[in-house]
Amino acid sequence: MSLHGKNFIGNVLSSNGNQSSKIYDINTNEPFEGEFIHATKEEVELALKKANEAFFIYKESSQLQRAEFLETIADEIMNLGDELVVRTIAESNLPRPRIEGERGRTVGQLRMFASLLKEGSWVEATIDEALPERKPLPRNDLRKMLRPIGVVSVFEASNFPLAFACAGGDTASALAAGCPVIVKAHSSHSGTSELIATAIIKAVKKSNMPDGTFSMVHGSGRTVGQQIVLNEIVKAVGFTGSTQGGMKLFELANQRKTPIPVFAEMGSINPCLILPSAVKNSDNMASLYASSITVGVGQFCTNPGLILTIKDENLEIFKEKLSKEINKIAPATMLSHGIQEAYEKGKKEALSQKGITLLGESNIKNTKAEGRPTIASVDAKTFMENPKLHEEIFGPYSLLVECEDLKELSLVIDCLEGQLTATVMGEETEMIKYKEVISSLENRCGRILFNGVPTGVEVCHSMQHGGPFPAATDSRFTSVGTGAIRRFVRPVCFQDCPNSLLPNELKDENPLKILRIVNEKYTRESL
Amino acid sequence: MSLHGKNFIGNVLSSNGNQSSKIYDINTNEPFEGEFIHATKEEVELALKKANEAFFIYKESSQLQRAEFLETIADEIMNLGDELVVRTIAESNLPRPRIEGERGRTVGQLRMFASLLKEGSWVEATIDEALPERKPLPRNDLRKMLRPIGVVSVFEASNFPLAFACAGGDTASALAAGCPVIVKAHSSHSGTSELIATAIIKAVKKSNMPDGTFSMVHGSGRTVGQQIVLNEIVKAVGFTGSTQGGMKLFELANQRKTPIPVFAEMGSINPCLILPSAVKNSDNMASLYASSITVGVGQFCTNPGLILTIKDENLEIFKEKLSKEINKIAPATMLSHGIQEAYEKGKKEALSQKGITLLGESNIKNTKAEGRPTIASVDAKTFMENPKLHEEIFGPYSLLVECEDLKELSLVIDCLEGQLTATVMGEETEMIKYKEVISSLENRCGRILFNGVPTGVEVCHSMQHGGPFPAATDSRFTSVGTGAIRRFVRPVCFQDCPNSLLPNELKDENPLKILRIVNEKYTRESL
Repeated sequence: MSLHGKNFIGNVLSSNGNQSSKIYDINTNEPFEGEFIHATKEEVELALKKANEAFFIYKESSQLQRAEFLETIADEIMNLGDELVVRTIAESNLPRPRIEGERGRTVGQLRMFASLLKEGSWVEATIDEALPERKPLPRNDLRKMLRPIGVVSVFEASNFPLAFACAGGDTASALAAGCPVIVKAHSSHSGTSELIATAIIKAVKKSNMPDGTFSMVHGSGRTVGQQIVLNEIVKAVGFTGSTQGGMKLFELANQRKTPIPVFAEMGSINPCLILPSAVKNSDNMASLYASSITVGVGQFCTNPGLILTIKDENLEIFKEKLSKEINKIAPATMLSHGIQEAYEKGKKEALSQKGITLLGESNIKNTKAEGRPTIASVDAKTFMENPKLHEEIFGPYSLLVECEDLKELSLVIDCLEGQLTATVMGEETEMIKYKEVISSLENRCGRILFNGVPTGVEVCHSMQHGGPFPAATDSRFTSVGTGAIRRFVRPVCFQDCPNSLLPNELKDENPLKILRIVNEKYTRESL
Repeated sequence: MSLHGKNFIGNVLSSNGNQSSKIYDINTNEPFEGEFIHATKEEVELALKKANEAFFIYKESSQLQRAEFLETIADEIMNLGDELVVRTIAESNLPRPRIEGERGRTVGQLRMFASLLKEGSWVEATIDEALPERKPLPRNDLRKMLRPIGVVSVFEASNFPLAFACAGGDTASALAAGCPVIVKAHSSHSGTSELIATAIIKAVKKSNMPDGTFSMVHGSGRTVGQQIVLNEIVKAVGFTGSTQGGMKLFELANQRKTPIPVFAEMGSINPCLILPSAVKNSDNMASLYASSITVGVGQFCTNPGLILTIKDENLEIFKEKLSKEINKIAPATMLSHGIQEAYEKGKKEALSQKGITLLGESNIKNTKAEGRPTIASVDAKTFMENPKLHEEIFGPYSLLVECEDLKELSLVIDCLEGQLTATVMGEETEMIKYKEVISSLENRCGRILFNGVPTGVEVCHSMQHGGPFPAATDSRFTSVGTGAIRRFVRPVCFQDCPNSLLPNELKDENPLKILRIVNEKYTRESL
């Protein structure tokens, strides 16, 4: 299938614009197939209008209908076959196993939401029956459930061209919730996006979902992106990317006549506290962490960018071993020239700060747009005094902070910003001693891990991917796992509503047999 | 007990400031007992510091401990006896049955949260056990639950001096969640607030909660309020009041280094769609609505400020009967001079708009600071063209909009802003015909009612009090009912955490016997 480069305005392909962009091979600087036509104002406007009209139909679809729709999207993505994998590898410079894995994750995610919808209880149906005889006042019949919030705007991430992109977690959870989606394609993998959008539109048609349930447009964030977020039709925004990009959307959303939630996952430095008992076990620790720092060329928002330690006789050995491990890992091509340049610049700036010691840097030559694994160290006082050192450097870089004692460690943790993850390495008995700093770490992150590495985010019910600001704009929600659906719904209460007019989830007979809270008791029974 | 007028800086009374305010009898202009000393910068700072220190202890309290604490607050409020009721009546000009009822609601609310905590399942404990053998990658043990967000700032409302004030729904839900609270007292009922704060502090001491779990300060929103909201220690804000006040807090919160959620419930005009079959039943409808428009001198955020009708042969009769009902209801004293003046001004401005007809106005003389029941009408076109007519007029006023037909009604609903409630009156068979406009109303409100009146907000599991902007700043949360606790918690995921370090809610043995989702199944079993 050849790439047409057009915008998906609902089910209709459209290319009225006169601006376009191509994607270039990072190694040869030759353009890949496909010229992507930026959407015009009118095209974006039409996509929004269609989405709004679709909403009033789509929101009334049953959970089962939406589940089958999501499964059809997953099937259509698999039907794209190797063409998708080849294009994604080319655009992202990520290796085949990673991309095949990411495709598996993407369709797995769609099917996970389908299974959530088939079970159905996630809507939190809650019923308090009427008490007409109650004194001094009778109680009305009150029934509440989560209902879709409206049209959702999704911005593709660059580092997960499938799983956090066109049919990624934001789109899957919004569609599952009953919200139409408008995706702004990322300029670094627009071919991948086009293939995925084609699959989604096939599914829209096969599943008889209304035209406008899904749209995807090309163009820059400043024009197309801004136009979407500022439009009153849009009720929520999903974004994964840089702090700068996320905060721009957040500000735009708050300037609107009606402010809307922006769910921006903006990354973090993911502090890893390596307690003395773990430092002692230096061989294992060094290879485990060198591997986590460099996996995927460090291009994960859960990359361990900060290692917290306490000075003791074993720390020097651990530092030496960690440097050696880092030295022997080959640099690899990054996602794009832009990302590689930002990595080099950020690293150079960090290493030039007062009090920073370069511990190790890969000594293997590789490609041009490489991310060179690097580890540095700093003492706690210098770290605390210099906020520059608290910033994320997106790539295979980590900074080891040496604290004098538990007290200083506690001060270091107190000055950390919000994080996606925090990790504690050590023996269980030792952790009791560090209970307060662990509690303080927990209070600063969305996920706290024990004796593991933060890279690798499981897609499941129990995942929390998000965290206190600036890791994410809203710590109360996750962008990974079934909980992600909560971002795009709001509770609506129906008072004394005739049974025939109630959503199935709230009807007397509980036709979906979902778990509900009825008169303060959890039950699947009918009334 | 005589009123000291001091600030509650945690458990310590403090009055270092040189500014103060008194509260005046609306009828005699004589001051009531008590001079309320505004908190100084240093006092506010200390309250914040204490709250932050208390948080790390309080967040680790068990649900049962917090339940008993809330029950003790309720008991201590009842122990204040009639002194509280007398003072609240004096400060609010609300009648005794209303204030006694509101006290009942306030302690009922505290006990409701206590019972929620004793049951315990609201934390949404979710467990996905490790799958060490899974291919291609093993799964870690992942456990998630809702954890307290941090220190919460509460702004008292003027119209509910007990239920939306010092120990009202915001405070009760934040304390239930595990968050320390700092209340800014409302200047119109500071004596009531002092009595309640005294009761809370007694409960803090009796329950051995840390000093700083609760503070209350006097002072203006511009100084004391702003200082609290801008302080990085505060993690969320609860507010009920005017659009202007709520939006000021919302803007401040978004200007911070770390933006925080502001839950501002800012009222609405609560459209009531009276379908032809209900209009026909004009006697009942007229008395029901006249009563809802004027109850509590119209000082409810759920007051029916907008009545939507379709022209037919019965509408003139209904209008006439509604006017007659309104004419014979006596004006009554409003909460304060300020509120009464705003009501008069707003009403005068509304009635002077082009195309507005005054249908009826109470013809009974009463006190000076009275709210005079008033009903006006307008045709749909004029209403749609003039946004001035969509604004809330806080008091016993309502505007009846006459639409030509279903199509025009639909256009009117399309141009309405977000609402706390929407109401549909009519026969069930008729509602089927109006299904689309009802769906559109539902999409614009937090609670949709059938054949009732929006005034009267039940405190229960199924209540949703909130709605799309500008009714509230965040439609995804409620400020009334058990759901209110969700505002002050965030999910935290524990990965491979040793059982001994897990919160009780997530431990293998499920000691609290709460309902959890374990490996995708709802269960109260241990692992």
